[in-house]
Amino acid sequence: MRLLTRARMQRRTPRAKRAADFDRAVAEFFMRLALEEAAKGLGRTSPNPVVGAVLVKGGRIIARGYHRRAGTAHAEVVALEAAGAKARGADLYTTLEPCDHYGRTPPCSQAVLDAGVRRVFTASSDPNPKVNGKGVARLRRAGVEVVTGVLKDEADTLNRPFFKAVSTGLPYVTLKAAVTLDGKLATATGDSRWVTGEQARAWVHRLRNQVDVILVGATTVQRDNPQLTTRLSEGSGKDPVRVVVDSHLRLSPKLTVFTQRSPARTVVATLEDPAGRKAKRFLAAGAEVWQMPGKQGRVDLEALMRRLAKEGLNHVLVEGGAEMYGSFLRESLADELLLFVAPKLIGSEGLSWSGSLGVKQMGRALTVGKLSFEQVGEDLLLRARLSEPK
Amino acid sequence: MRLLTRARMQRRTPRAKRAADFDRAVAEFFMRLALEEAAKGLGRTSPNPVVGAVLVKGGRIIARGYHRRAGTAHAEVVALEAAGAKARGADLYTTLEPCDHYGRTPPCSQAVLDAGVRRVFTASSDPNPKVNGKGVARLRRAGVEVVTGVLKDEADTLNRPFFKAVSTGLPYVTLKAAVTLDGKLATATGDSRWVTGEQARAWVHRLRNQVDVILVGATTVQRDNPQLTTRLSEGSGKDPVRVVVDSHLRLSPKLTVFTQRSPARTVVATLEDPAGRKAKRFLAAGAEVWQMPGKQGRVDLEALMRRLAKEGLNHVLVEGGAEMYGSFLRESLADELLLFVAPKLIGSEGLSWSGSLGVKQMGRALTVGKLSFEQVGEDLLLRARLSEPK
Repeated sequence: MRLLTRARMQRRTPRAKRAADFDRAVAEFFMRLALEEAAKGLGRTSPNPVVGAVLVKGGRIIARGYHRRAGTAHAEVVALEAAGAKARGADLYTTLEPCDHYGRTPPCSQAVLDAGVRRVFTASSDPNPKVNGKGVARLRRAGVEVVTGVLKDEADTLNRPFFKAVSTGLPYVTLKAAVTLDGKLATATGDSRWVTGEQARAWVHRLRNQVDVILVGATTVQRDNPQLTTRLSEGSGKDPVRVVVDSHLRLSPKLTVFTQRSPARTVVATLEDPAGRKAKRFLAAGAEVWQMPGKQGRVDLEALMRRLAKEGLNHVLVEGGAEMYGSFLRESLADELLLFVAPKLIGSEGLSWSGSLGVKQMGRALTVGKLSFEQVGEDLLLRARLSEPK
Repeated sequence: MRLLTRARMQRRTPRAKRAADFDRAVAEFFMRLALEEAAKGLGRTSPNPVVGAVLVKGGRIIARGYHRRAGTAHAEVVALEAAGAKARGADLYTTLEPCDHYGRTPPCSQAVLDAGVRRVFTASSDPNPKVNGKGVARLRRAGVEVVTGVLKDEADTLNRPFFKAVSTGLPYVTLKAAVTLDGKLATATGDSRWVTGEQARAWVHRLRNQVDVILVGATTVQRDNPQLTTRLSEGSGKDPVRVVVDSHLRLSPKLTVFTQRSPARTVVATLEDPAGRKAKRFLAAGAEVWQMPGKQGRVDLEALMRRLAKEGLNHVLVEGGAEMYGSFLRESLADELLLFVAPKLIGSEGLSWSGSLGVKQMGRALTVGKLSFEQVGEDLLLRARLSEPK
């Protein structure tokens, strides 16, 4: 049945269109592999974007590469170096247009020309005004065929944190909460171990491995005494920078997050003086103390976000608690919501996840983007965009 | 690729098994049509089950039928009568085994024999001890080939309310709530119009068309002044019996649910004396007043459920509010949860849907069955079983 239909479609499709469809399918096939390369860099390249590259010759992949972290070679160069002389006459698939300026590394556009690449396929455009189209223009002037925008949406999605930080000076913020089917983070007595099952928790560790920062409020640290590290069942992960918002330094510096061994930094964001007695105990424990401007007696979260972006940290994962979620939602500082919903109920006495939003009429509810959903073990993962895509 | 695999499978499959697989596929195909017939009776046949029947001869459907409501002809008889003399030598597909006793109608097993049906395929077994296997036995004794249990699970699911009522004396209870993404029914000021979108609301009207009873608490009636009628965009619906739980008759009998025109009964379940002054105003408005036993100062819901089942009402849809949901959950009186989740947030000040459950530790949360989910317009519908399937 299916074959018949396809055959019919083909009879109706002009030969030229069919050829173009085939070319696009091939380009998307290899670009998808380049995107897989790029994704290997998630959580490691900030303030740079993640980028992947694949070199193809005679229909075969001759080299792959991705940007490992800021200051190291760009993805195209990694692939070109791996291919060596074989790169001559090959097609390059790269998820971001090649750069055309001297930064910490020489311009990739020149490296592509030097290697004798025949055609270049790109996905995202570089928002950096130093690049923006210049690399592509140089390649074209030199006679290289360039096809832009292949799987652009997928590539842009992968670099949402980078694009947001470049265009706004603010990091991309993901709110992640694990709740019961009645929307609760914890019982009235504060018990929250565990809301979701093992698979959902493992999912969160894979997410932590791909972000730059985990941020939590002091109440959550007080209640759960969490590690906030990346613990993967497979392979080794990278701990994100931990930011604990403790406006008045009420926490004990003896809590696990301050005393554990972890290669990543731990930051306490506060209104208190870093030279004060309380702050010194956190500094002695190895944490950084950032004195932030206040807003209604609390750390000004927007100022904190700007500081994180300035430090080259593009993707912040907010993991609780209700007060933090509420503040990020109220101040429109969050971009994305990941809500794990467990098949259990604890009743209205429990702690609602969304914090205070002050909405008095249903018609004035804070609306989120289209919900998408997937099963993760016994739990459900609901996702929604909180801001328009950049 | 797919064809190759299938061809390989066929080479490995003995001819007899292939023939049996084919026969089963044919039987399931026609049984599915019989189930579609049965579903037409949903919400109309209580206390009887829904039943559908299809007569097939030479691979063609020669008649269909379904049980329209208690006291009318059984599905098999409807189909046999439609087929007339053509039924001789035909195959009968019926979603419930044919009855074998004189009730309001003569036994279907005899009608099947009289019509000269060659083979009978059934799905569910009848839990009624007066039937249970007897109809099938009589047919077999008379030389009719009978295949039982075709699509049994689907057929049993369709008649869950009937099976539960027969085996426990309690109706099947569906809790349906429309909530925000933070689990709220309404804002702190009680505003709940509208949580979900048009398509979700239309879905609920189709559900109302298939149940016997809508039950709500007095608070919901006071706050929303609802009609609790079935309003379908296509075709005409049937209003379910409306039950308002108002333990102390605090509502005004002038509210819409008591004064509107609707062919269906409206019942007020209360602790108050039906001969009292307050009750008389409800009676005067055309409502029934049921005086129920109390439990902690409120109407005893289990007693109310038993009474509904005794009145032949097998499927109760609870539509609010939080207090009602909580009571049904606490007392394990509910079988199924339908939670419409809208892509909006109103914050922790809103009214949590699940009512008070008194759970102090996460490990003691009330667990529900596996969550399933589907998109309904802009909203999400989460479903879970609250009790083990009957």
